[in-house]
Amino acid sequence: MTLEELKAQHPWTGRGTVVFMSDFGTADGAVSAMHGVADEVDHHLRLEDLTHEIPQFNIWEASYRLIQAMTYWAPGTVFVCVVDPGVGSDRESVAVLTASGHIVVTPDNGTLTHVERQVGILERRKISEAENRLKNSQRSYTFHGRDVYAFTGARLASGTISFDEVGPRLDRMPVMLPVQDSVIKDGAIWGSVDILDTRYGSLWTNIPDTMLNDYGVGYGDSVRVTIMKDGRTVYGYTLPVCRNFTEVEKGEALVYINSLLNVGVAVSQGSFADSYRIGTGLGWVIRLEKI
Amino acid sequence: MTLEELKAQHPWTGRGTVVFMSDFGTADGAVSAMHGVADEVDHHLRLEDLTHEIPQFNIWEASYRLIQAMTYWAPGTVFVCVVDPGVGSDRESVAVLTASGHIVVTPDNGTLTHVERQVGILERRKISEAENRLKNSQRSYTFHGRDVYAFTGARLASGTISFDEVGPRLDRMPVMLPVQDSVIKDGAIWGSVDILDTRYGSLWTNIPDTMLNDYGVGYGDSVRVTIMKDGRTVYGYTLPVCRNFTEVEKGEALVYINSLLNVGVAVSQGSFADSYRIGTGLGWVIRLEKI
Amino acid sequence: MTLEELKAQHPWTGRGTVVFMSDFGTADGAVSAMHGVADEVDHHLRLEDLTHEIPQFNIWEASYRLIQAMTYWAPGTVFVCVVDPGVGSDRESVAVLTASGHIVVTPDNGTLTHVERQVGILERRKISEAENRLKNSQRSYTFHGRDVYAFTGARLASGTISFDEVGPRLDRMPVMLPVQDSVIKDGAIWGSVDILDTRYGSLWTNIPDTMLNDYGVGYGDSVRVTIMKDGRTVYGYTLPVCRNFTEVEKGEALVYINSLLNVGVAVSQGSFADSYRIGTGLGWVIRLEKI
Repeated sequence: MTLEELKAQHPWTGRGTVVFMSDFGTADGAVSAMHGVADEVDHHLRLEDLTHEIPQFNIWEASYRLIQAMTYWAPGTVFVCVVDPGVGSDRESVAVLTASGHIVVTPDNGTLTHVERQVGILERRKISEAENRLKNSQRSYTFHGRDVYAFTGARLASGTISFDEVGPRLDRMPVMLPVQDSVIKDGAIWGSVDILDTRYGSLWTNIPDTMLNDYGVGYGDSVRVTIMKDGRTVYGYTLPVCRNFTEVEKGEALVYINSLLNVGVAVSQGSFADSYRIGTGLGWVIRLEKI
Repeated sequence: MTLEELKAQHPWTGRGTVVFMSDFGTADGAVSAMHGVADEVDHHLRLEDLTHEIPQFNIWEASYRLIQAMTYWAPGTVFVCVVDPGVGSDRESVAVLTASGHIVVTPDNGTLTHVERQVGILERRKISEAENRLKNSQRSYTFHGRDVYAFTGARLASGTISFDEVGPRLDRMPVMLPVQDSVIKDGAIWGSVDILDTRYGSLWTNIPDTMLNDYGVGYGDSVRVTIMKDGRTVYGYTLPVCRNFTEVEKGEALVYINSLLNVGVAVSQGSFADSYRIGTGLGWVIRLEKI
Repeated sequence: MTLEELKAQHPWTGRGTVVFMSDFGTADGAVSAMHGVADEVDHHLRLEDLTHEIPQFNIWEASYRLIQAMTYWAPGTVFVCVVDPGVGSDRESVAVLTASGHIVVTPDNGTLTHVERQVGILERRKISEAENRLKNSQRSYTFHGRDVYAFTGARLASGTISFDEVGPRLDRMPVMLPVQDSVIKDGAIWGSVDILDTRYGSLWTNIPDTMLNDYGVGYGDSVRVTIMKDGRTVYGYTLPVCRNFTEVEKGEALVYINSLLNVGVAVSQGSFADSYRIGTGLGWVIRLEKI
């Protein structure tokens, strides 16, 4: 669909949904205040939460969780993503329209990294606070999530304003965090350990299932898995490539394809990250090698 | 109501509700992806969460939490319950219709134990994934919660499919976890310590208030409480049977009737489980004796 | 608006919203049972959660979190607040109508302290359980949140009953917790450390930004901050008064105005409370002095 067609369709009939994400936690009233602001804009919006347990100030994880859930929501859904260590500084407040027809309202500090790379951003607008700010909130400098982002997201989702009415169009790219590409090199696949499947402790890599196929490895094969931190090997073992966790015994490790169709490494009914003290993010590299 | 009458009434007018339960936690995007799938099936569904903090792979607790909340929802409400250590194995994916008019969509691995015993299951159907699976999800083997259960639950709740369209009828019983019955024997009541009231640390037993009455004990009486683990006594004390926690001093223990009308044991404004290191489940037995 | 005008307007057209708060946690089925009861009263209500992570029995924090979010919801919204260590005792069950047009349904044990002080309560009615109690719940004495408060809150939000039909009007004030006033005295501002911004560890005081202005301190100034516990000084330092956390280096402390327009003390991208072992509530005093 073209940008103009997407804009013309929004808001999709009856598709008024705002999905909130933050690092606020849910122990106090902050998330509820954002919902309240959105409800007051339009009582008929669906108000949802992606998660509010992003580790404080962890923009990388926010970017990842957004891409994990976004495309499972209908086009037209508006995401309000607030992990904002620079609240009130000169980082820009933006709304972007993605090639998938979703809208993300966020401080432009890196939360759009995975969305830009994997889905694509068609247009990016700076939020004009003159129009798009909760009335009487001018003395508040530290809660843009409530005063600017929830308010603007709800106005977009409800059709109160069009995408163009957010504010002036920005020409440059969003702020991007450094991202490692996975690659086949020297007879092996090299990738990064991007993030944990938090509750279970499985590793999620940036290696797509299609690269594993291209490399000639499929279900039933085994691969040599090496995990390195800053160049130092911290794990090296041969593991089976499985469809399901139940193909190995409880407590045994395996390679699998996760719900985002990337390679994962897990312990059946256990935590791989805890068992082998593996972390994620910068400096964590994984190599898969045919045997 | 008969099975046919129940089926004819579903979905109850305007009662499109899906209630989700899992062991996924809420720190990543998994739960939101399930909501998104359901919203895309029908934007007008009510989407709710029972809890996503079931301890990982703890099917017993999932079964218990389901019965704790299910009957407080209107008939016609659909529950999607995903605690699924065997995802992708040959455990069956089912939808069941209960005698109370609720529908539960779940891997058939024991989560239906309490529903079958306390409410009764009228019919059980195997989910045909040919029709009842999210489009383009075939390469994903490890997230049936999103790809199969959320999708099927939403289609049932919205009336997109009838209960019969889930798939073929199954004749045998659901998978049942072993359950202890409470009983009056040798002049005492014998029961099991089923679960904790997590936040407060009170014990919930399988002894109904009616059995306490039959045994001749009522509010104002005292009983000798003995708690055993694998036959070894770990607690023995005489406690008052109270309507309210405030009938004893702060920090004192009591026997009471919990919100499911079973016998509970608590410390007023404290944690019985922590204070006396009591656990729950297999091997934990409680005996109540008149004094 | 007068009391009669407020009553006549309620429920605001289409504004059927119930917001729940408790110390129940979300690990079991208790919160979902409350939602189910409300849904059964009226399927078209919006059902929301303020938080269920109030520390057990901490009525002070419940009162604070309520005021933190309440006024960001539209008038007509009904709040069901259940932190109820005295459940079943003679503490009264009430519904109150505030000067802001909100309704709060709660055990009258102090949860209304900040609402009464900062917004004002126009009328207070005792819940008549003869009419306003879930059918067939009479044998349950320990879960008024589900059996009385959720049920009554939903009936109010849906317009099933008017405010006057809650029960008899009460003439006296709600139960109030002791609250410290902030004051300018001996050339300094004296206030209390009311609560933490939980996730970030910033201190929230009871000193309004207007008092800081009256005292002649503004953004860009520095103040001598002294924090005392029971009269003993535990922190003393000169800090800048900032609009944003980014005006100091990461890890440095600052004074700012929080989202409720009160003075806060924080460490940029860190936890002030953890760094300096500061607590909140009774006995914690803060003094700000011009330098």
